[in-house]
Amino acid sequence: MKSISRRSKKSGLPPGTLVHIGEKRTGATTITLFEYDASHCRESKVPSPENLTVAAEPTVTWIDVSGIHQLDVIEAFGKRFNLHPLLLEDIVNTEQRPKVDEYDSYWYVVVKMLYAGDRPKGFLVEQVSFILGSNFILSFQENGRDVFEPVRERLRSGKGRIRQSGSDYLLYALIDAVVDEYFGVLEAMGERLESLQNAVVANPQPATLNDIHLLRRELLVLRRAVWPLREAVGKVERSESPLIRASTKVFFRDVYDHVIQTIDTIETLRETVTGVLDIYLSSTTYRLNEVIKVLTIITTIFMPLTFIAGIYGMNFEFMPELHSKWGYPLVLLGMAAITIGMLVFFKRKKWL
Amino acid sequence: MKSISRRSKKSGLPPGTLVHIGEKRTGATTITLFEYDASHCRESKVPSPENLTVAAEPTVTWIDVSGIHQLDVIEAFGKRFNLHPLLLEDIVNTEQRPKVDEYDSYWYVVVKMLYAGDRPKGFLVEQVSFILGSNFILSFQENGRDVFEPVRERLRSGKGRIRQSGSDYLLYALIDAVVDEYFGVLEAMGERLESLQNAVVANPQPATLNDIHLLRRELLVLRRAVWPLREAVGKVERSESPLIRASTKVFFRDVYDHVIQTIDTIETLRETVTGVLDIYLSSTTYRLNEVIKVLTIITTIFMPLTFIAGIYGMNFEFMPELHSKWGYPLVLLGMAAITIGMLVFFKRKKWL
Amino acid sequence: MKSISRRSKKSGLPPGTLVHIGEKRTGATTITLFEYDASHCRESKVPSPENLTVAAEPTVTWIDVSGIHQLDVIEAFGKRFNLHPLLLEDIVNTEQRPKVDEYDSYWYVVVKMLYAGDRPKGFLVEQVSFILGSNFILSFQENGRDVFEPVRERLRSGKGRIRQSGSDYLLYALIDAVVDEYFGVLEAMGERLESLQNAVVANPQPATLNDIHLLRRELLVLRRAVWPLREAVGKVERSESPLIRASTKVFFRDVYDHVIQTIDTIETLRETVTGVLDIYLSSTTYRLNEVIKVLTIITTIFMPLTFIAGIYGMNFEFMPELHSKWGYPLVLLGMAAITIGMLVFFKRKKWL
Amino acid sequence: MKSISRRSKKSGLPPGTLVHIGEKRTGATTITLFEYDASHCRESKVPSPENLTVAAEPTVTWIDVSGIHQLDVIEAFGKRFNLHPLLLEDIVNTEQRPKVDEYDSYWYVVVKMLYAGDRPKGFLVEQVSFILGSNFILSFQENGRDVFEPVRERLRSGKGRIRQSGSDYLLYALIDAVVDEYFGVLEAMGERLESLQNAVVANPQPATLNDIHLLRRELLVLRRAVWPLREAVGKVERSESPLIRASTKVFFRDVYDHVIQTIDTIETLRETVTGVLDIYLSSTTYRLNEVIKVLTIITTIFMPLTFIAGIYGMNFEFMPELHSKWGYPLVLLGMAAITIGMLVFFKRKKWL
Amino acid sequence: MKSISRRSKKSGLPPGTLVHIGEKRTGATTITLFEYDASHCRESKVPSPENLTVAAEPTVTWIDVSGIHQLDVIEAFGKRFNLHPLLLEDIVNTEQRPKVDEYDSYWYVVVKMLYAGDRPKGFLVEQVSFILGSNFILSFQENGRDVFEPVRERLRSGKGRIRQSGSDYLLYALIDAVVDEYFGVLEAMGERLESLQNAVVANPQPATLNDIHLLRRELLVLRRAVWPLREAVGKVERSESPLIRASTKVFFRDVYDHVIQTIDTIETLRETVTGVLDIYLSSTTYRLNEVIKVLTIITTIFMPLTFIAGIYGMNFEFMPELHSKWGYPLVLLGMAAITIGMLVFFKRKKWL
Repeated sequence: MKSISRRSKKSGLPPGTLVHIGEKRTGATTITLFEYDASHCRESKVPSPENLTVAAEPTVTWIDVSGIHQLDVIEAFGKRFNLHPLLLEDIVNTEQRPKVDEYDSYWYVVVKMLYAGDRPKGFLVEQVSFILGSNFILSFQENGRDVFEPVRERLRSGKGRIRQSGSDYLLYALIDAVVDEYFGVLEAMGERLESLQNAVVANPQPATLNDIHLLRRELLVLRRAVWPLREAVGKVERSESPLIRASTKVFFRDVYDHVIQTIDTIETLRETVTGVLDIYLSSTTYRLNEVIKVLTIITTIFMPLTFIAGIYGMNFEFMPELHSKWGYPLVLLGMAAITIGMLVFFKRKKWL
Repeated sequence: MKSISRRSKKSGLPPGTLVHIGEKRTGATTITLFEYDASHCRESKVPSPENLTVAAEPTVTWIDVSGIHQLDVIEAFGKRFNLHPLLLEDIVNTEQRPKVDEYDSYWYVVVKMLYAGDRPKGFLVEQVSFILGSNFILSFQENGRDVFEPVRERLRSGKGRIRQSGSDYLLYALIDAVVDEYFGVLEAMGERLESLQNAVVANPQPATLNDIHLLRRELLVLRRAVWPLREAVGKVERSESPLIRASTKVFFRDVYDHVIQTIDTIETLRETVTGVLDIYLSSTTYRLNEVIKVLTIITTIFMPLTFIAGIYGMNFEFMPELHSKWGYPLVLLGMAAITIGMLVFFKRKKWL
Repeated sequence: MKSISRRSKKSGLPPGTLVHIGEKRTGATTITLFEYDASHCRESKVPSPENLTVAAEPTVTWIDVSGIHQLDVIEAFGKRFNLHPLLLEDIVNTEQRPKVDEYDSYWYVVVKMLYAGDRPKGFLVEQVSFILGSNFILSFQENGRDVFEPVRERLRSGKGRIRQSGSDYLLYALIDAVVDEYFGVLEAMGERLESLQNAVVANPQPATLNDIHLLRRELLVLRRAVWPLREAVGKVERSESPLIRASTKVFFRDVYDHVIQTIDTIETLRETVTGVLDIYLSSTTYRLNEVIKVLTIITTIFMPLTFIAGIYGMNFEFMPELHSKWGYPLVLLGMAAITIGMLVFFKRKKWL
Repeated sequence: MKSISRRSKKSGLPPGTLVHIGEKRTGATTITLFEYDASHCRESKVPSPENLTVAAEPTVTWIDVSGIHQLDVIEAFGKRFNLHPLLLEDIVNTEQRPKVDEYDSYWYVVVKMLYAGDRPKGFLVEQVSFILGSNFILSFQENGRDVFEPVRERLRSGKGRIRQSGSDYLLYALIDAVVDEYFGVLEAMGERLESLQNAVVANPQPATLNDIHLLRRELLVLRRAVWPLREAVGKVERSESPLIRASTKVFFRDVYDHVIQTIDTIETLRETVTGVLDIYLSSTTYRLNEVIKVLTIITTIFMPLTFIAGIYGMNFEFMPELHSKWGYPLVLLGMAAITIGMLVFFKRKKWL
Repeated sequence: MKSISRRSKKSGLPPGTLVHIGEKRTGATTITLFEYDASHCRESKVPSPENLTVAAEPTVTWIDVSGIHQLDVIEAFGKRFNLHPLLLEDIVNTEQRPKVDEYDSYWYVVVKMLYAGDRPKGFLVEQVSFILGSNFILSFQENGRDVFEPVRERLRSGKGRIRQSGSDYLLYALIDAVVDEYFGVLEAMGERLESLQNAVVANPQPATLNDIHLLRRELLVLRRAVWPLREAVGKVERSESPLIRASTKVFFRDVYDHVIQTIDTIETLRETVTGVLDIYLSSTTYRLNEVIKVLTIITTIFMPLTFIAGIYGMNFEFMPELHSKWGYPLVLLGMAAITIGMLVFFKRKKWL
């Protein structure tokens, strides 16, 4: 997860120049076509956008494009659907914030698709752009892997109201699928956080600290994906445009609620991360205290003893104790007494 | 208290599919019916929603459902009362934020019911959904335990204005009962915080720190339950809908005031927790200082003494002091003088 | 100052049930009556609210009630002046936030009266409720002690414009007296903070830390008393109600300015408290450094010396130095040289 | 710079009672009169406000009053110009926040005049009140020292547009002079901050810390002077009142920009102060580490050596090494080997 | 990068007096002229503003002025184009915040041009002012170095829509070029932050800390350049003025998106810097712990051993062990046993 992208390679080019910004990708762009109404659903692969046609209402057409690095394909879409050059530029620049831009006859919607995937740490971020027309949707993804399979399944099977509804409902279904996946990502992060919490108490190490900060930065990435989405979905919900039917708005309100739940969870995780950091720091200090207590106890016991031994190791001629038969055992007894006294003292100070 | 729920098991399902999200529950769903007007109040158990009827005004009907894990019962309610599928989905998903959703002929209200319970630490959170119609209320709880008994008592006895008022007043009474319980939960947390405060000064340990962070996280959960409630209750108070009579609004304003008092108390507790953390950290450092002072005092006194003893333990042939009769007692005197000097020095530095 | 009140004892009671929440009080409730116009002012004690009458305009009547724990008296007022049950409930519940509630023919205003009093630390908080009618004011205090004496004096003497003005001006005069006292409380806190600041530099101890946090919590209480007052007074100033004459609004704007000055001072004190905490922590660390420097200096000087003494205390047969006449003085000289060298080293490192 | 003023001495007095709050001042109040139009400018001293007259338009009259502690003079102004009693009260109370109050035929404007002055640390704060009429300005300062000399010079010389413009432009010129001086104060603070930054790295001491916190508190005072000014100047700029001509508004927009630049600089300085505090704390810790490393190195080298010397200082009869001719040199060699080994170890750990 | 400028040298001058505030510059001011329409583009150098004419629409004229320290040139522009004196003052004062000021027949726009340049650390900030008329743009830069070369190239070549569009589109193109460069600056900062992150873990030193704080302050400078730009560009986008054509607004919306992306990145970097500071502090503490562990281990092992050696170095006559043949080897064995025991103890405590 790079926090700073290579956005700068665009600098100086005229607006509307398509430059792919994002992870390097190879492989051909694939175009999948869904045409459906209440009674039919036809699914097909299309080789290129040139010969695409959008059937008349009430048929809804969903054209899903995987791979945005082939700029000629995107440009062909732009010509075929008469899209604004700036919009095309946004599609191929994966550094967009989630947003909704209204154009005259269509809407442009950008969201961030996350998936926890099979990686032990972190998650993958991918940008998905939607173009919503009155009876069609174009969707552009970075690669062929997505979270839309359940939506396709519902289209094929005709379960639920999806086949009876328009393109606005399809847009809802796709965004809802994206937001649903956020919960999975957050669960994975919650679990990692919990294991970090344990590690921090058991054995705090700089590596743990690094992991905590990594998690914090990932939460930041998530936040940047979700906060603007709130505004964007709210804009759809409140919209007066004929592209969004009144009956669909209640569904967008539902997505809006989910987005807010996600934000709540992110903020809670962030606060918890801060708490874990606090525990890390203070458990480091606690350990330091423990170490220094040991040092002090050892020093405090042995320094006086060694000093006494030193006294009777002096070579003065006139030291009467040295010649006494009881000198040695008495000194040993005295040393034992001092040791016991010290131990009692430390016990009382609760250092032992 | 899990901060991250198993919300993800819903992902990919069509909207309106009922999936119970929340703690595993068993046991049958029970339905309790209250029908009342100014002069009568009838209370009964109903086996299933099919044969429910709502009496004409001015009779008010309150149908209280305990247990939302039996999805067929919830679906039957949906059919019987013509409820929106998304609303049903929200009822059985216990991860909702408190909110008020307006539908054409009814309102959907979600609140979080907390009770301090008999647990030594923490509290229980339960989601309660209300559906407010012009002359009826449906309420859905997670289990049979609730905070509504005083309301039921007032309905039975006819005390107060509750039997003279409509369903909007009943909604107020129920929400008021929920909010009233928040104060109990906060009092329990306040007491725990006070005992933590004492523990932190007396004997700061990592376990104490953990307890502080636990409390902080619980306050976060509370905050998430109460902040959105403020907006929701404010929406009811300002509403122009015929479902809320003008005379009832003053009561919702009262609930609104209580919610704000709760928020105030939560924020105060949060600031206090931060203060306790500060005291924890600095009392750890203070103890460290104390330990190191002991170490330094001991070292500073005995190192010079041991050195002097070492001097006279050397085996040089020509050390005139060794042969003097006063050598030994003078050295001992010197050592005593050094010790006293050191003690005076430490006294002046206020280390003793 | 308890941060969490016993608000929970109300839980479950029907709304409008009077329950006194606040400090336990004894002693009878006293009712004082002021009736005045431009030319007269009559002051009298009234035994009970039953036989109270409000004289017609332009006479203004101020009924001041001290003691809100006698619930029957409050209820009698409610009947006599036709007050809303929820309002009565708020009067006897001392956990209200400052607020202004508009009712049909009167306003309900709550403020927090603070006085620094004769206590060395902290201050007393008391709730005062006002009911503003077109030509009368009811005021309810927790006990007989208040900050209104100067207002009474002005009423008796007829100085200023108070006797020429209506009940709205009296409300202004009373609230102004309350806010004026805030400055006294803040001055007392400012002085305590200054003495803490000195203590922190001179001799930082956990007790000092506790005092700092106590002050911080008191500032929090003050904040909670003053922030909502800002909104409340602003509401009065902007009000279109006939209860507030246009000529009086300029006075409420003045109170509003004072409230904002109070808030400014509170925020400054809060920032200063944070600064004092920082100084506390870092002066603890500084002292630790000083202690450890002493330890290191002593150890670094005496360890090598003791080692050298140990060398010549060894019992090898063939140690030529031991038999030299200059051995002992040369070793002593060497030790002195090492000591001086160490001292120069420490001087250069600025440890001495 | 006292953060808490003696505002409390006003408490209990009727509104409109003049009480001077601020630094004790002596010396007579002086009144300076400027009367000017495009072609003339007359400057004169006036002994008292009684015989003041304001010439008819297009002549503009500026009456500048230095010294607000002579309450009878202020009261005479109040009578002569028919000013509201609360306004007079505000003039003599130097604890006002910057603000603009609109009265029927004039405006009341308060700003804080700062000057870095010749003091090595800190700055002086003085309150200046303006009363803006259609063709006159009254200004009230605490003492005779001010930042208005360049404005007077422009009036006398007739340079710029000031003599061609009305009283609103004069108000602009005076406020602009005040705001311009803020930059000088900020530059002085910036320089002090820079020297603190160096001190913190070179030799962090509690005195430095105190200086940092002093600067922080001064920034707080500045903030309190400038933030409300932003709102006040913005109010003038947006005003629809005939007192502010449209052609003058662009100048107030310019002042507004300067105020915002000042706020920006204050916030930057505040963030820098926070950074300096961080560096202070961590350079303290760094020094602690250095000291403890020395301690550890000395201990680690000499403890084993002293132990070895102790071994051969034992008085056992049967210690064959003692009688060997190579015993002593071999032990010395061994000690040298241990010392070198330790030094290599510390070198590798980067402690040396 | 000085945080406090020499703004104060302006203080006391009448408004509209031109004073150059900013870095000292020398060298003549150069004026470059572009005149273009859809079919032609003429580029020329102009010696002085006096003989400049603006061709009639549809020709667009761009006059680019490099060097604002020659105040007579700026004044000549002011006379020639009838510009407001305050505007001229703003042009030559490089301490402006980014803003858009609307005047009657033109707009004044200020932005901050940054370039990472070839400096290893930090970046250069330069102020650029634009004056947008219906068919011309004046631009004022501090020196001849800028980021507008790609725009000039597009004008010359006629690529894109720039030659077909009006002066508003040219303004967009210039601001877009400025904002595009921000991404380069941010990338450079991101890389420096990453290398600091590594340094902090590998070898935390006060110099590293200084670098971190330098970066933090640079981010603050950037923030101050970009935050107000957001508002300014938003103002252009929402404007109803005829100077901005409807078809150009979509491009300003695009710039607005880029500005918000920049702000997002800045905030992310700021949070990361905070994280790096945390890691710095705690890795310092961790190292302290490591050092003290070594100290404690050494002390704990050798103190008891030295004490035992001291015991048998005492000179008592009656010490039977001394005469035993096994005394010496047994004592050595005992010492070895103690050492091994200690090592096991430390192993268990995970100190080794």
